Amino acid sequence: MATVEVEKKVLARNDLVAEKNREKWKAGGAFSINLISSPGAGKTTLLEKTLIALAGRVTVAVIEGDVATENDADRIRAVGVPAEAVVTGGACHLDASMTARAYSSLEKRLSSPPALLVIENVGNLVCPAAYDLGEDEKVVLLSVTEGEDKPLKYPAVFAAAQVCVVTKADLLPHLDFDFGKMTDSILSINPGIKIFTLSARTGEGMDAWVEYLAARAGGRAS
Amino acid sequence: MATVEVEKKVLARNDLVAEKNREKWKAGGAFSINLISSPGAGKTTLLEKTLIALAGRVTVAVIEGDVATENDADRIRAVGVPAEAVVTGGACHLDASMTARAYSSLEKRLSSPPALLVIENVGNLVCPAAYDLGEDEKVVLLSVTEGEDKPLKYPAVFAAAQVCVVTKADLLPHLDFDFGKMTDSILSINPGIKIFTLSARTGEGMDAWVEYLAARAGGRAS
Repeated sequence: MATVEVEKKVLARNDLVAEKNREKWKAGGAFSINLISSPGAGKTTLLEKTLIALAGRVTVAVIEGDVATENDADRIRAVGVPAEAVVTGGACHLDASMTARAYSSLEKRLSSPPALLVIENVGNLVCPAAYDLGEDEKVVLLSVTEGEDKPLKYPAVFAAAQVCVVTKADLLPHLDFDFGKMTDSILSINPGIKIFTLSARTGEGMDAWVEYLAARAGGRAS
Repeated sequence: MATVEVEKKVLARNDLVAEKNREKWKAGGAFSINLISSPGAGKTTLLEKTLIALAGRVTVAVIEGDVATENDADRIRAVGVPAEAVVTGGACHLDASMTARAYSSLEKRLSSPPALLVIENVGNLVCPAAYDLGEDEKVVLLSVTEGEDKPLKYPAVFAAAQVCVVTKADLLPHLDFDFGKMTDSILSINPGIKIFTLSARTGEGMDAWVEYLAARAGGRAS
């Protein structure tokens, strides 16, 4: 019972900081997303390819959350986009305060606020769903290799997200995967969610996702 | 700071209950494992195929942890093995008390203690690593689709596990996956870990894993 009370207080405090983040990012004109998925669903690979596609059209900055290592932030910097790493040292999700501190560091290196702020959360399909970071939209990734039953087994994040990106679509011919069942499951939890299906590896389906972000961030249509 | 203190107390209390579980299971002659992985790494599919291979050789009972739904427990019961579901209702890991309660329920339906007790944790590569359930060995699953960089990014569970099962090996021809890099990463974190590579779908590599469990559980060799 004591643990539950502490958790409620932690979440209430988090929400206050998240609201400040939201106001700050909105005032700077940024559209912000919080990328959430299991480890290995392909968040960083999708982000690399997305940033390359948006280069010269939309200014982007990235906050990279990880339990350990700055490897993901290094991958983002390698495609020429400013990235700040948050190494949680064991914690299983980002919270609004960690994100605020990371944005403050990032800000010092930017000449103006980005049009698109991407926050890549720690790889975890459970805990990040409960923590508002101040983002405009939560984007949940689900790789086809994880199986079509995952939305019903991890419903909170699918209920909270505005967008679901189904990744690794190039592997579909090699899997026993019921695409219709997965879509039905997602929509039964969240009928208003927008679903993109793509392969960052082959490029299949990437255009629709990239144009969605560009439009949201106010970039010009291609 | 207050949160950290509460977390320490929670873990200390958990360890006491885990020790009682361990004593009880050992007294009953069971070998127990705690299966940990990301959502969709293939824990339940591996377990189904393992139980079929062990049928008639080793008595098994299963505790199935899930955030929502009893689907996995139903899949285990369908192969004729007693299974108790623990639906955590949002919590991101099993703890020793949940596991103790589940085992008490399970026990009532068994004529004698099982030779092998399998606890399938909630799909999460972060939080379950911190909670001892009383098991003899932690078994971490890593699917090849998750990428060879995951051990260094989620080191705690690879450090805590006695066994790593690399799953979905049938998909290797369709992936850019550096097998040597993955093995090096795992062994750099935990030089003593035992690694099995297999595909539950094709059966490739299953024998070594099944014989390992049978030997640990005191079943006769095939």
